Amino acid sequence: MFDDESSPRRSAGSSTKPGSQSALRRRNELRVTEQLLRGGPATQAELSRLTGLSTATVSNIVKSMQQAGLVTLTATTSSGRRAHSVRYIGDSSIAAGIDFGRSHVRVVLANRSYQVVAERQIPLPLGHDATVGIAAAAKLLDELLVEGGISRSSLVGAGAGIPGPIDRRTGKVIQGAILPEWVGINLHERLKSALELPVFIENDANLGALAQITWGAYSAVPNLVFVKIGTGIGAGLIVNGSLYSGSIGVTGEIGHLTINESGLICRCGNRGCLETVASTATMIQLLSRDKSHPMDAEDIVRHAKAGDSTTLRVLEDAGTAVGRALATISNLMSPDVIVIGGPLATLGELLLSPIRRGLLRHAVPVVGENTTLATSSLGPRSEALGAVSLVFQSDPAKQTT
Amino acid sequence: MFDDESSPRRSAGSSTKPGSQSALRRRNELRVTEQLLRGGPATQAELSRLTGLSTATVSNIVKSMQQAGLVTLTATTSSGRRAHSVRYIGDSSIAAGIDFGRSHVRVVLANRSYQVVAERQIPLPLGHDATVGIAAAAKLLDELLVEGGISRSSLVGAGAGIPGPIDRRTGKVIQGAILPEWVGINLHERLKSALELPVFIENDANLGALAQITWGAYSAVPNLVFVKIGTGIGAGLIVNGSLYSGSIGVTGEIGHLTINESGLICRCGNRGCLETVASTATMIQLLSRDKSHPMDAEDIVRHAKAGDSTTLRVLEDAGTAVGRALATISNLMSPDVIVIGGPLATLGELLLSPIRRGLLRHAVPVVGENTTLATSSLGPRSEALGAVSLVFQSDPAKQTT
Repeated sequence: MFDDESSPRRSAGSSTKPGSQSALRRRNELRVTEQLLRGGPATQAELSRLTGLSTATVSNIVKSMQQAGLVTLTATTSSGRRAHSVRYIGDSSIAAGIDFGRSHVRVVLANRSYQVVAERQIPLPLGHDATVGIAAAAKLLDELLVEGGISRSSLVGAGAGIPGPIDRRTGKVIQGAILPEWVGINLHERLKSALELPVFIENDANLGALAQITWGAYSAVPNLVFVKIGTGIGAGLIVNGSLYSGSIGVTGEIGHLTINESGLICRCGNRGCLETVASTATMIQLLSRDKSHPMDAEDIVRHAKAGDSTTLRVLEDAGTAVGRALATISNLMSPDVIVIGGPLATLGELLLSPIRRGLLRHAVPVVGENTTLATSSLGPRSEALGAVSLVFQSDPAKQTT
Repeated sequence: MFDDESSPRRSAGSSTKPGSQSALRRRNELRVTEQLLRGGPATQAELSRLTGLSTATVSNIVKSMQQAGLVTLTATTSSGRRAHSVRYIGDSSIAAGIDFGRSHVRVVLANRSYQVVAERQIPLPLGHDATVGIAAAAKLLDELLVEGGISRSSLVGAGAGIPGPIDRRTGKVIQGAILPEWVGINLHERLKSALELPVFIENDANLGALAQITWGAYSAVPNLVFVKIGTGIGAGLIVNGSLYSGSIGVTGEIGHLTINESGLICRCGNRGCLETVASTATMIQLLSRDKSHPMDAEDIVRHAKAGDSTTLRVLEDAGTAVGRALATISNLMSPDVIVIGGPLATLGELLLSPIRRGLLRHAVPVVGENTTLATSSLGPRSEALGAVSLVFQSDPAKQTT
């Protein structure tokens, strides 16, 4: 979701029309920047030749970039004549990525080279409301800036993810979120006024998907599905190399695929949804039945790795159901890669095996055989990293000029 | 396509420098032309939205194209308002659209203004092999050319659809097709050598989807699903305004979504797939049990319209199951519109009502409520019309210059 412009398709009347003068100017500036990043320092005459822009246009652009502190000019000689070499001194832009969870908030600061410069996660009470979560994120962000000696002015924006659907038309959290206390609030507005920054909001699974193609191993994969198995189950879709948002921004809701028509009642109001048989919440409930203390997701990981047969059986059943849902996604969208994230991802093959069995059992054969299944290597950072990407991808031209 | 990067990079000395006003104007004109060629007739408001150009810019361009005899304007209504539909009439190219069915082949010839100039369908024996089908299509195409007085040299290509998945990597028909005799043949190669034309192959449901956004009422809809309910059930997906092909070209296989884990064996090798409960083949089987002569799809339509309670019950059960599958698509992709095609589409609300009930019952509420459900208005022509669009979309720039 773009800042202040929820639906860029409809933005024909905005000031950045593709065919307008200002857009033309922006494109020309971007072309000079790209040339400097790709080709290193160059004189204005060389830049003109390399970009195809007139020397007058290059001169104007270089002047404004110099004023913005993006380039320096140093005296040199070119073809025996005195000239100035234009050198891009990068930018010190920092983006914040915020991951709101059911009982935590994580903030990551990273630069445009996709390097994390500061990062911390703190616990929040279960059932906290949005005001508490947003205040905690704002405080954590300020602390990280101070500790890292980072100027607030270098922050170009904040991306944030929450475990629940967001209506891209309104910026509001929709019924069905893992954070029921947040439903109905306009997260975009609230966070923007708390942070005093451009803010970009997305569903957490969507950010996980974005992280896979920006920070992860799959930058060249056109069609990818990221599935987060946690208290809820959601998927983010990368379609033709970009995050897919559908008509209202609520996509990848595989947690509410009907697995058992007369199964348990789901928080979405339906019955027998995938979440009711395969979320970590369901697994914990099943495994805690004869325990004095309820387990958590880390216990599932520990017990499974230790070979506990009950835990493995629960994982088997849940994984098979997830695989069946993934077969449905695959039959519909034929993705190249499906990446599994969430707290169980560290189980690797222990988790992937039952999922793969479910997938191959229910997918059209040629589709199942051609879908690569893997666990995420980004761990619990993936949502916050994806939120950073959301900021840098939102409008790179605007932020570099 | 306003990208300046593609070629003029080195053309610093030419008169159409990428940054100049005349180049900008030309790029904008090209963009409107391409949209009309690829997307068919559209109103100026739609053109503005689809190209990202301002309404004023589009208006100026359309005016000059009209003066040059490249477009015609005809009165229409759009969203209840009077408007003019802009239609490109700039060249005499003809494309052939071929629809191979289980027991028919249909050929349509149309020009670049998206007007049908000749059309015919002939029956073929059930179980005919590919050689018979291809020869029949080639003969029909030749007859239509002669009857229409159309020069073969004006044919720019042929598009063809078959009711089955096609592996886009090889051009071969994949196991699971409604035409089992065609599995494994390279339809692309065979048709190309029979017709001596550039050939473009697609699954029939994909062509139905493409027809909806080119010939149908949905030219401005970014995300659309076309569902063909016939002997098999398949879906074509329009994502961000284009036909979506996934990693191997096999997408929208909702006919093989598991509805009943221990249901009937499906031709795909799985059990309880949607097709085993909701295809016209299944309905016919259910309704023919106590009949001396087996029914066909037209009988279902006739009996349902006459109010036959048994037929309506069978439609109710099948429709609800289809709706459940559409809820899954909607939860994943949140399309703006779902269009139902196939021989039952003429039933209108009699078919849509149970489908809508299944959709709303199983979809995440905000998604179900925001998905428009409709029957196709293109009738049995939609696949052949989509095949025509496939040709004109393949490389419009190359074919007009």
